[in-house]
Amino acid sequence: MASIARLARPSAFPLAGLAQSGRPGASSRPQFLISASSRPSLAATCRLSPNPIFQTARQYADKASPPKKKRGFRKLRFLWRLTYLSLFAGIGYAGYGIWLDRHPAPQQQPDPNKKTLVVLGTGWGSVSLLKKLDTENYNVIVISPRNFFLFTPLLPSCTTGTIEHRSIMEPIRAILSRKKTSVQFFEAEASSIDPDRKVVKIFDDSEIKGKISETEVPYDMLVVGVGSETATFGIQGVNEHSCFLKEIGDAQRIRKKIMDCVETAAFKDQSPEEIDRLLHMVVVGGGPTGVEFAAELQDFFEEDIKNLIPEFSHHFHVTLIEALPNVLPSFSKQLIEYTESTLKEQTIDIKTKTVVKKVTDRTVEAQCSLPSGSKETIVLTYGLLVWAAGNAVRPLVKDLMSKIPAQKDSRRGLAVNEYLVVQGTRDVWALGDCAVAGYAPTAQVAAQEGAFLAKLFNNMAKTESVEEEIQNLSSSLNVKPGVNAAETSQTIEQLEQQLKRVRDAKPFHYSHQGSLAYIGSEKAVADVSWWNGNIAAGGKLTYLFWRSAYLSMCFSTRNRFLVINDWLKSKTFGRDVSRE
Amino acid sequence: MASIARLARPSAFPLAGLAQSGRPGASSRPQFLISASSRPSLAATCRLSPNPIFQTARQYADKASPPKKKRGFRKLRFLWRLTYLSLFAGIGYAGYGIWLDRHPAPQQQPDPNKKTLVVLGTGWGSVSLLKKLDTENYNVIVISPRNFFLFTPLLPSCTTGTIEHRSIMEPIRAILSRKKTSVQFFEAEASSIDPDRKVVKIFDDSEIKGKISETEVPYDMLVVGVGSETATFGIQGVNEHSCFLKEIGDAQRIRKKIMDCVETAAFKDQSPEEIDRLLHMVVVGGGPTGVEFAAELQDFFEEDIKNLIPEFSHHFHVTLIEALPNVLPSFSKQLIEYTESTLKEQTIDIKTKTVVKKVTDRTVEAQCSLPSGSKETIVLTYGLLVWAAGNAVRPLVKDLMSKIPAQKDSRRGLAVNEYLVVQGTRDVWALGDCAVAGYAPTAQVAAQEGAFLAKLFNNMAKTESVEEEIQNLSSSLNVKPGVNAAETSQTIEQLEQQLKRVRDAKPFHYSHQGSLAYIGSEKAVADVSWWNGNIAAGGKLTYLFWRSAYLSMCFSTRNRFLVINDWLKSKTFGRDVSRE
Repeated sequence: MASIARLARPSAFPLAGLAQSGRPGASSRPQFLISASSRPSLAATCRLSPNPIFQTARQYADKASPPKKKRGFRKLRFLWRLTYLSLFAGIGYAGYGIWLDRHPAPQQQPDPNKKTLVVLGTGWGSVSLLKKLDTENYNVIVISPRNFFLFTPLLPSCTTGTIEHRSIMEPIRAILSRKKTSVQFFEAEASSIDPDRKVVKIFDDSEIKGKISETEVPYDMLVVGVGSETATFGIQGVNEHSCFLKEIGDAQRIRKKIMDCVETAAFKDQSPEEIDRLLHMVVVGGGPTGVEFAAELQDFFEEDIKNLIPEFSHHFHVTLIEALPNVLPSFSKQLIEYTESTLKEQTIDIKTKTVVKKVTDRTVEAQCSLPSGSKETIVLTYGLLVWAAGNAVRPLVKDLMSKIPAQKDSRRGLAVNEYLVVQGTRDVWALGDCAVAGYAPTAQVAAQEGAFLAKLFNNMAKTESVEEEIQNLSSSLNVKPGVNAAETSQTIEQLEQQLKRVRDAKPFHYSHQGSLAYIGSEKAVADVSWWNGNIAAGGKLTYLFWRSAYLSMCFSTRNRFLVINDWLKSKTFGRDVSRE
Repeated sequence: MASIARLARPSAFPLAGLAQSGRPGASSRPQFLISASSRPSLAATCRLSPNPIFQTARQYADKASPPKKKRGFRKLRFLWRLTYLSLFAGIGYAGYGIWLDRHPAPQQQPDPNKKTLVVLGTGWGSVSLLKKLDTENYNVIVISPRNFFLFTPLLPSCTTGTIEHRSIMEPIRAILSRKKTSVQFFEAEASSIDPDRKVVKIFDDSEIKGKISETEVPYDMLVVGVGSETATFGIQGVNEHSCFLKEIGDAQRIRKKIMDCVETAAFKDQSPEEIDRLLHMVVVGGGPTGVEFAAELQDFFEEDIKNLIPEFSHHFHVTLIEALPNVLPSFSKQLIEYTESTLKEQTIDIKTKTVVKKVTDRTVEAQCSLPSGSKETIVLTYGLLVWAAGNAVRPLVKDLMSKIPAQKDSRRGLAVNEYLVVQGTRDVWALGDCAVAGYAPTAQVAAQEGAFLAKLFNNMAKTESVEEEIQNLSSSLNVKPGVNAAETSQTIEQLEQQLKRVRDAKPFHYSHQGSLAYIGSEKAVADVSWWNGNIAAGGKLTYLFWRSAYLSMCFSTRNRFLVINDWLKSKTFGRDVSRE
């Protein structure tokens, strides 16, 4: 709270309210405790009922207690009932949601005469598109090497076991089973796109292959949402020796490696210098992913590893390296300062204005810019190196860009127009990290782009059906002119107006909701858009907001439940230190 | 129930009782439902209290209700209170257990003058030994490549996600932190044992290595509990193409491969024959592991995969291959028949008297013995092959056996005497699957052997301390004969008697508690020892017994909670079909 007060701008109070309202249980639970523990409210703990027995008990209670307390009783009783009711309602609502998810309505088969819409990828952009798309308008085919959607903002929590990895995954087949018309899914990697022939070449890159393991998928409309890969900027040794933090496999690898470092440090007769090296964890990249990972790592050590191996207390150390002058560059100055001071309090070493030059299996060589303007080369030994810096273009996207003359000046991905159409193509759209629309490569942008495209495609389908109707009416008008001509003309006019409205689609506009980051010791920072301004907040209360915001953003009720379950689990039992 | 009745011998009823008593919540929950739903028991839902308000309410209730129902009310009220109380007591007890586990008392440092006891392995035998060993008597060192204990009976459930793998793992460091005197743990593989020099050579075989990654650990006493590896009987292709089911990594690999088969079968334009092949899962080995895995696999398909990909309904198929004339050879004949008929009902194909001869990446070649006595060679195509047949001796154990002349005739592991001393050695004990003591290589045997050795070692330490005391007293008797001579002699005599009792350790005797196996469709079979006889039961009620028995055998409160949690999770949300 103290830190909130220190940081919050005058308009910070609504955020505090927001943070609380995001957790419906938080406000009602204390009241439960009050009524359950205070003796005089016994009658209030009875079940809700108009039964005379109960009323007598209440009258007796009313008489027995001093008149002053009467109102308090009623209030307590009311709150107790409210708690009960909202609890039942909440459970009922969640249960119904889960039941609906598990028992989707039977699906229609897609109409073979409709256009084929191929969606590449199962990330934020593609899944957001699929969620809002009316699949009955197209033959939809989804292609991705990953048969699940991953809730990436909570990925750093998976590296230490605060959350189990499956809790933030939602199977794409479960998502698709909830659509009105069925959607085909192929678990495959797209190797190339031919915009002239309108086909996507795909291949099965998993371990088990069938007789057919590569083929072509023709499309009428194509959405490229394949995301990006981690950029190593061509720095020697990064690919070989560091862990990335982008996919679920990365998080599992890091989790295993953290414990591998710890167990190797505990090996018989390991020298103190070698223990220092093994327990030195270096994180490159001071964006939200890097900061959250560094914070989670320090938490894991302080709360779990240290208790089991106390002799490591003075050896464990996290260093965060960032090329820019400060961490979390997208946040406001106040929050950056607060983050840096909080990280330092947790003994995380921050090296800003430091550029990694070379990586070997045990060392990171980096160049720091000193305040004097001169440069200094430092060599850090490490046990674990996590690379969370920058995005690079995927080979598929590079290949497509090379085929389109209009894309020759684009470097960071597929240049798209304001309707997300890939420039220089027809019927190809791009969204998310692989598209360059002038926005940051974040989940928020991708999700909004997906929702925009879904609306666009729904409108396009509507346009086509209205156009068809107009054409039919017009032709009937020509064939048999007669009594209904005036009426038909009027209908056509109405339809044309409707068409105009549908066609009048506004271009994509990104609306920034804010940025959040966990910074360790149960503190978070938030830079949230509010009315026409911004609210900046940091501290323990913001951490509650962070949690509730991420919970509300989870894909399904199942995910939400599993994440809460994991938070409770790791709080109750500690994080698992098994190396696996 | 029907099947229970059909199968149960006359003494089957106590088992039904057992099955219920194993789940303390089962008997009290229905009563909760009764009192919560029956209107007249309103007063009974009030909190327990001697408060006059409450008593009045009760009196009123007593008067208002007809005299006949009075007793029923009281009973209900009593049961309601009992439920409440036992619920609170249960939560309190579990909470206290969890708190104790997370906040172990500060540990003593081991006395450097004590003997060094080295324990190899963190499986059933070694962990059972460590659990009961008084660590203050020795300098205990535990060495294993796996820094956790794995509850192997539930491993088949992990292959399909009925249970998450971390729920059946308990970190060895957490186990050791609860001992009175601290124990060293090295995460390392033992490469060889030198019984003459009394040292164990160890090396770090994990990915991250320190400057010291191999060394020697001297011992005064050594316990070998390294288990066994899966036997392939030298059959061509088994190592390369099949999945084993012994370690947690195996279960994860299988889980990923099941979904890989499904997704590859769903690849564009896959032929029906190829889909048949990919969705044909072959399990070799009709022991409990093989049967449980086959059953879990069929459940996974029926309950989850089929709903998401209905077109696969007629393609999925499980075949169970066993060389012996029937599955579950350690169970009684009735249960074997029941198991085989239940598996067949689930469309699992059982091929007994069938010996695998050769495995390729897509086919299993096997020889069946026909009823006529002739042999037939069959070739099955498969998508996933799981090998759950037999145990083989680990290289470390083979190496040790080759160094000991007395072990030259032993084939299946280290021959031990009735005190589990490795024959032909001094101060080396063996237990579990790597020891040949005349018992089946099961978790139950290993656990009992571990507990036996712990008692033996505790007794040995006591013997030594008593002997020392006797020696001290005797020498004092010789040095200064005087007034206390008689008294001292008496004390010596007492101590010698005590010594005799302690020394009079009985040899190891295995007491079989019974066998359990899950056979699919929420049915299980149990062959349980009861008094002097056996109880054989199979069916849905036995499945409840199976669950409660395994729950009670879980290592810690944490494991128990996590397993229950996973059962509820997979029941509520279905199993996760993400390929990861």
